[in-house]
Amino acid sequence: MSARLPSLWKRLSSTISPRPAPPKAHHHAPIPDAAFPSGYVLTGLHCGIKKTGALDLAVILSTTPKPASAAACFTRNAFKAAPVVVSEEVLQRNASTARALVVNSGCANAVTGKQGMEDAWAMVRATDALLGCSAKESETLVMSTGVIGQTLPISKVLAGIESQSSDSQTKSLGSDFTAWERAAKAFMTTDTFPKLRARTFSIDGREYKMAGMDKGAGMIHPDMGPPRTAGQLHATLLGCIMTDAAVSPRSLQSALTYAVDRSFNSISVDGDMSTNDTIVVLANGSAASDPAAEIDEERDPRTYQLFRDELTTFAADLAQLVVRDGEGATKFVTVSVNGAATYEDAHRIASRISTSALVKTALYGQDANWGRILAATGSVPLSVPIDPTRVSVSFIPTDGSPALPLLVNGEPETVDEARAKEIISVEDLEIEVQLGIGSENAKYWTCDFSYEYVRINGDYRS
Amino acid sequence: MSARLPSLWKRLSSTISPRPAPPKAHHHAPIPDAAFPSGYVLTGLHCGIKKTGALDLAVILSTTPKPASAAACFTRNAFKAAPVVVSEEVLQRNASTARALVVNSGCANAVTGKQGMEDAWAMVRATDALLGCSAKESETLVMSTGVIGQTLPISKVLAGIESQSSDSQTKSLGSDFTAWERAAKAFMTTDTFPKLRARTFSIDGREYKMAGMDKGAGMIHPDMGPPRTAGQLHATLLGCIMTDAAVSPRSLQSALTYAVDRSFNSISVDGDMSTNDTIVVLANGSAASDPAAEIDEERDPRTYQLFRDELTTFAADLAQLVVRDGEGATKFVTVSVNGAATYEDAHRIASRISTSALVKTALYGQDANWGRILAATGSVPLSVPIDPTRVSVSFIPTDGSPALPLLVNGEPETVDEARAKEIISVEDLEIEVQLGIGSENAKYWTCDFSYEYVRINGDYRS
Repeated sequence: MSARLPSLWKRLSSTISPRPAPPKAHHHAPIPDAAFPSGYVLTGLHCGIKKTGALDLAVILSTTPKPASAAACFTRNAFKAAPVVVSEEVLQRNASTARALVVNSGCANAVTGKQGMEDAWAMVRATDALLGCSAKESETLVMSTGVIGQTLPISKVLAGIESQSSDSQTKSLGSDFTAWERAAKAFMTTDTFPKLRARTFSIDGREYKMAGMDKGAGMIHPDMGPPRTAGQLHATLLGCIMTDAAVSPRSLQSALTYAVDRSFNSISVDGDMSTNDTIVVLANGSAASDPAAEIDEERDPRTYQLFRDELTTFAADLAQLVVRDGEGATKFVTVSVNGAATYEDAHRIASRISTSALVKTALYGQDANWGRILAATGSVPLSVPIDPTRVSVSFIPTDGSPALPLLVNGEPETVDEARAKEIISVEDLEIEVQLGIGSENAKYWTCDFSYEYVRINGDYRS
Repeated sequence: MSARLPSLWKRLSSTISPRPAPPKAHHHAPIPDAAFPSGYVLTGLHCGIKKTGALDLAVILSTTPKPASAAACFTRNAFKAAPVVVSEEVLQRNASTARALVVNSGCANAVTGKQGMEDAWAMVRATDALLGCSAKESETLVMSTGVIGQTLPISKVLAGIESQSSDSQTKSLGSDFTAWERAAKAFMTTDTFPKLRARTFSIDGREYKMAGMDKGAGMIHPDMGPPRTAGQLHATLLGCIMTDAAVSPRSLQSALTYAVDRSFNSISVDGDMSTNDTIVVLANGSAASDPAAEIDEERDPRTYQLFRDELTTFAADLAQLVVRDGEGATKFVTVSVNGAATYEDAHRIASRISTSALVKTALYGQDANWGRILAATGSVPLSVPIDPTRVSVSFIPTDGSPALPLLVNGEPETVDEARAKEIISVEDLEIEVQLGIGSENAKYWTCDFSYEYVRINGDYRS
């Protein structure tokens, strides 16, 4: 068998050579302190879960007198990790408000039975204790990511949280860029860069800020819903967004659900849904002392919609960072499905194309194989069936040069293969499928499937 | 960039080395002439589609005076290849009977517009002409497989078919093993061995024979239904089964639909559904001159069921050959999902596990990563939700040694990793998921995801 290996390597390298992932470090850069929302302190530290000594615990506190409005979307997987179950419970007990978020990486606390539940609650209580006497019980949300089926080294985790108490010498909570960056780093597992973004926006002349972080590189195909929908589970996509806007809890949840569908639920690295996927948003209202300024869908649908759209594009920015950092990814591909009868139909096709192993290996091989895109498009059951004679497929270059039609109204174009190769050899690419049935559109973001993906995931646990 | 390549190769090879696919030639072996059903002549020839000179055209004729009962399942893809549309039409015109089947490989005749339809009909007419004066018009079914979006070199194909006319010097139609083998070889595209099987079976003391062939190695995740259901399309899994049993057309279709769900619709290589997938069965009744011997579901449900079960296990044998030959596959894995509330629930979970990139790369890496199996299991929407505390996951060795429980009633077992590694390093493996909800079971067959898969499919068109 070993005698055959060299020839196999030779065969591998003689056809498509492994292309290294493009540089990714530039996706993380310093952000001015003033860009972050007020009323939050946070940190990231090494408590001892990761053997490498890397940061593995993030603590995020809202410092406003009133608890922040809190909303979350959790994985719909049936095997809920303990932190998912506990966070849902916390949101329910506190009528969708919270004051803190505690996050560990390196251990998912999933499929860990009763011990896992006790550990997640212990993390909540320890973080509650940092909030001072104004806090009620259980005002902390909790998230975990890492290996499934192992219990947390809970005493190390609790010691880490306690190191942030007000009388501690080792307290590192802060509100500047460094503090936000440390927290973002503590989210990381197989990520190659911390994922942190901030934005300032205005609604009716009032200025607000929003900042957020997330993590994820593999087991990325989230399908998250609001709390207490049927059958959620555990997840490897974690994210949180903090804003100083004042938003009613119900409207915050409704805006997040809308935003997550169009961001985190529209990305795929490998098509695998995790048992811990969680996105949390906190809105502490510290930007406005005027109570009338609270954004609420029923009171003022227009300002609500403006906020919802800000949250959606911000969430999409964060979600796309995960695809950029997809395990082994050398391409960042936007899949646009336009002209569908319903948003769900468009989303379903975009998801299928984005998870097709044949499409993704063709992208890695830089082969403009539109037949595979078409086969994936046609394999999805829809509410209104496809009319093949109306379907068009194009490559949209990301340098602003003209689109390259591959198929127009069901008929293959005579494709300029050199031009196609040119477009597909750039890191960023958009594939557009026009169905020609209706007016609904959906976007999905995906990456390619490389040798490196096989290496990383053939070898994860060791 | 090129400076980084050697270190990338080094990194690739330093962790999981590429394992070559196990030898596969032994899956094809001579079959005694007497094992094949009577009343069929067939051949395979090179008509000129494949540049390599390999066989690329199969002609199969039923020689009984009456046309054979004919049934088929076609891909549900929305982009139907021309041969799929034409075969559906032929079945309808002839009340589900047929006398011939013509198959080409090397060109899928898919997304080829009006020209493609004309070419498929021309293949039908040319094969009709081989049947002699007893034939009506359009008694031939047609299948194509190969590259999408290219038209057939139709004059070469027609010349190939005409070379089998009764007055031709080059006629090679026969009924012995060599003839069956040549036909099976003409089905092949990226297949590494011809896929041919025969079986003899008895129902109520009557002896029948059944033989069949199929092809496929990539774009394998069929979902085929009977003719005229909504939205079928084109496919890269092709198969045909010929029997000398007499079966009424309606019962033949109903038996095939049942069989295909439990065989060809239960395999996956890469999760991608083709636009040409077609399975055809012909039953010419040549084993019995007694008309009362016709198997019919309404007349005699018991003999119908015996026939249906023979067809199902035979179809499963053929389907499994496709997985064995999966592109880059080094493992053959049976996924059994037991104890579900419905067959559909069990089948859906088995399909999800079988297509999970994380499960398949772990299989390639020979890593007993049950967390990924569990995450895939939990990600499927079901009619009756999973109760995590009732779920068990085991590895079933294929050497008859005891099963290795990985998770029992939702709690992880302390796994003997050495034993797990031992089981998973064998080519054949069974993964069993027991849901503990109901009594319905489903099986799926899949393979692993290797470097070689990425190489083959990053490089297909060139």
